[in-house]
Amino acid sequence: MSERTVLSVAELSARVKEIFVSAGCSERQAGAVARVIVAGERDGCKSHGIYRIEGCLRTIGAGKVVPDAVPAVISDESAIVRVHANGGFANAAFELGLPVLAERTRALGMAAMVVNNCTHFSALWPEVEAVAELGLAALAMCPSYATVAPTGGRKPLLGTNPMAFGWPRENDHPYVFDFATSMVARGEIELHRRAGKALPEGWALDQNGEPTTDPEAALAGAMLPFGGHKGSAISTMIELLAGAMIGDLMSPEALAFLGTTTLSPHHGELIIAFDPVRFSGQRRGNPFIQAESFFEAIAGQGARLPSQRRFRARSQSLAQGIALSAAEMAQLQRLLQVGLAAVE
Amino acid sequence: MSERTVLSVAELSARVKEIFVSAGCSERQAGAVARVIVAGERDGCKSHGIYRIEGCLRTIGAGKVVPDAVPAVISDESAIVRVHANGGFANAAFELGLPVLAERTRALGMAAMVVNNCTHFSALWPEVEAVAELGLAALAMCPSYATVAPTGGRKPLLGTNPMAFGWPRENDHPYVFDFATSMVARGEIELHRRAGKALPEGWALDQNGEPTTDPEAALAGAMLPFGGHKGSAISTMIELLAGAMIGDLMSPEALAFLGTTTLSPHHGELIIAFDPVRFSGQRRGNPFIQAESFFEAIAGQGARLPSQRRFRARSQSLAQGIALSAAEMAQLQRLLQVGLAAVE
Repeated sequence: MSERTVLSVAELSARVKEIFVSAGCSERQAGAVARVIVAGERDGCKSHGIYRIEGCLRTIGAGKVVPDAVPAVISDESAIVRVHANGGFANAAFELGLPVLAERTRALGMAAMVVNNCTHFSALWPEVEAVAELGLAALAMCPSYATVAPTGGRKPLLGTNPMAFGWPRENDHPYVFDFATSMVARGEIELHRRAGKALPEGWALDQNGEPTTDPEAALAGAMLPFGGHKGSAISTMIELLAGAMIGDLMSPEALAFLGTTTLSPHHGELIIAFDPVRFSGQRRGNPFIQAESFFEAIAGQGARLPSQRRFRARSQSLAQGIALSAAEMAQLQRLLQVGLAAVE
Repeated sequence: MSERTVLSVAELSARVKEIFVSAGCSERQAGAVARVIVAGERDGCKSHGIYRIEGCLRTIGAGKVVPDAVPAVISDESAIVRVHANGGFANAAFELGLPVLAERTRALGMAAMVVNNCTHFSALWPEVEAVAELGLAALAMCPSYATVAPTGGRKPLLGTNPMAFGWPRENDHPYVFDFATSMVARGEIELHRRAGKALPEGWALDQNGEPTTDPEAALAGAMLPFGGHKGSAISTMIELLAGAMIGDLMSPEALAFLGTTTLSPHHGELIIAFDPVRFSGQRRGNPFIQAESFFEAIAGQGARLPSQRRFRARSQSLAQGIALSAAEMAQLQRLLQVGLAAVE
């Protein structure tokens, strides 16, 4: 067995932040990106954890993200809170906008945060969880880069376009889901390629738009949306609402901007927040209590609520720390020492 | 060939409205329900057309809808427009709330209409299309009655929980989708039963929670969500947002209220409207033009936009009228003459 080093969440956060600072990020950008990377590692999502540091550094190195961007929030009497990320990571922009979004949501019952001109890194669950922790429900979505064919089509056009939702629970983690509207994330196909395994039917098309189970052909071709024409329609809605509507890039434009799918995508993001207490008007008592009996009914018949595996991993990480392998520790050390040069 | 009678949309609307008036509906309730029934017939959706009149009359006869309900709209400075349907059909409530929703959306950039205490009849596309015709985008959803098991579960809990979306297009019908978040609508299973055909795998569970392809067993058991755990999560979100959050019935409560799935369900409805011009802030020019190039790219690779078949049928109906069979004409006549007695 290789040796493992156990770090607390705070220790790992400090270390990851230092890497980004040494790569030229401002304290603010570095702190915000480090928080979501460590949240992924903490929650047992290795695919969204420290493994992602290199990709972020590559995106900085390629000049596709502004490492010291200063986000600016613009809010008025409307339900729209706009945060100009000014070319930085979405995370710092979201952190700046969150209290304003909460204030507007409490004032109006519902409000939306638009993040423009950002590099979107990682999952959407950190965003909807942060909103849910304030007692508000949240629906978040963003485009990606064009790698998914619409149902009935033959070529990449849609992104993997994730959608996430959070609902606050008083004595538990929020109800949270976060998934790609493609059949699977692109990383899944890459994993099949590395393992030399065929893809299940229905995941992908080859370069000629024909169904394929060959991961190599799929990576050169197009992925397919989840759930057939329904998933394709939802993914298109995400392009419209979180691309065209918010005045930001849609997935084909995001791909053109980057010229590759190996860097973190640049586009906007839309987060809609709801105040359930305002919406319910107390018509049938506390809406959260009504929701709890529904969650109980789901669990009572043996079905799982989403994100439970992640929350279990989190509890363990918070209690016992995060265990990293010797190779992972060495990689952190290397990234800190050589910074951007490590990815050039 | 049986003889067919061709009626204009206006003629058929007047005839359907008369049936509801003779069954005790107020002018307002009768007019609103007739409009959506005739819209279904006009658009070639026979399953949402005049075939549905009987079910509505049965719901009135069972005392589960108030045929002369007077909806009331409550609006303030917030983003929430609440319409109390007061036990009537959702359609009259929606019509009352629509101009207020549009006004609030233009004022704030985004607003929501909550319809409470209504019998929800028919599809959601009439709602999102009506909003889109005002130049606004719309996302609508509602629960139903518990007939769908959550993924990993064994018993009916979720409704077929439809979700619809509309995006305005300047020189074309809006981009519109509207679908059940179950694998199929319940009527599909009923059609398989009548035809003596087995269901495809993955549609349903029997009473013991085991997968089945027998339509009879499926009707006694539970349907399944579309798209596996992702569709199940979206359907749960609809229960939370358009049930608990708006202070109205969730699908198990709606089923308990009716005691049957043969009447139109009673619950609430949520319609969120967005002003794309406000959201875009003109950052990248006109958001509608950006969207058009995306629609062109979808169609350009041979994929279809949703609702096209419906819009083609509509054009034909508006140009040439709606052709009804002799049996359909006789049924309309019978329903007009005997009213509620026809369904007792």
